[in-house]
Amino acid sequence: MNLVAIGRVQSPLTLREDAPKQGDEGAPDAWLVFDEAVAEGLDGIVAGDELLLLTWLDQAERDVLKVIPRGDRSRGVQGVFNTRSPDRPNPIGLHRVTVLEVNGPRLHVRNLEALDGTPIVDVKPLLRSIEER
Amino acid sequence: MNLVAIGRVQSPLTLREDAPKQGDEGAPDAWLVFDEAVAEGLDGIVAGDELLLLTWLDQAERDVLKVIPRGDRSRGVQGVFNTRSPDRPNPIGLHRVTVLEVNGPRLHVRNLEALDGTPIVDVKPLLRSIEER
Repeated sequence: MNLVAIGRVQSPLTLREDAPKQGDEGAPDAWLVFDEAVAEGLDGIVAGDELLLLTWLDQAERDVLKVIPRGDRSRGVQGVFNTRSPDRPNPIGLHRVTVLEVNGPRLHVRNLEALDGTPIVDVKPLLRSIEER
Repeated sequence: MNLVAIGRVQSPLTLREDAPKQGDEGAPDAWLVFDEAVAEGLDGIVAGDELLLLTWLDQAERDVLKVIPRGDRSRGVQGVFNTRSPDRPNPIGLHRVTVLEVNGPRLHVRNLEALDGTPIVDVKPLLRSIEER
């Protein structure tokens, strides 16, 4: 099961310790820069769309199964699958973003906590209600 | 970027043509059977939890960039990243499920459209509102 990078995040965030835990906790806007080879896969995406972005968190540790969520000891130790920790066996990042602008194979998105250079592996639309699909 | 299977889906669904497009479109309940090696990563997950399950859709085609969503020609051809088609460069399935029962390293979940034997690659909790994190 091999993932291929289909693009990269372009962001002012460069250090893991500077990144908010979630996008809505003060993360900057960022560009999603897709490879030309997959650009036609973006057809139909427009400004205002809400997307789920999947990334490969290449600075994560993969041998971690227990964490203290948000470093808050009062919450105790939890299994990683019950947390959003980037450290986990398959460090796939899942980010909900709003598209601000589409510029060819580049999407400008609001509030993304992923670091500059993070590989993009997939993009999906939010699911609409069952009546609207 | 190599994914490792951390478990498998156990489901009565065995044929892609029998699988609903989304879990809430009549998919059966299923078991998520995790490898013992990652079982402690599940600590804290209880019945009633809502999870995001990430799978590897091993029957998908990876060289598809344009599709007709849900086979409905009136909607025209769309880029795969603007659809939930399983056929896409990195065929990661994203499924929102409710936990019905926890039995050691096995989670029984409601309404899962993934096929029997599908590799599990990650599980994450739904994000709570910013005040509750």
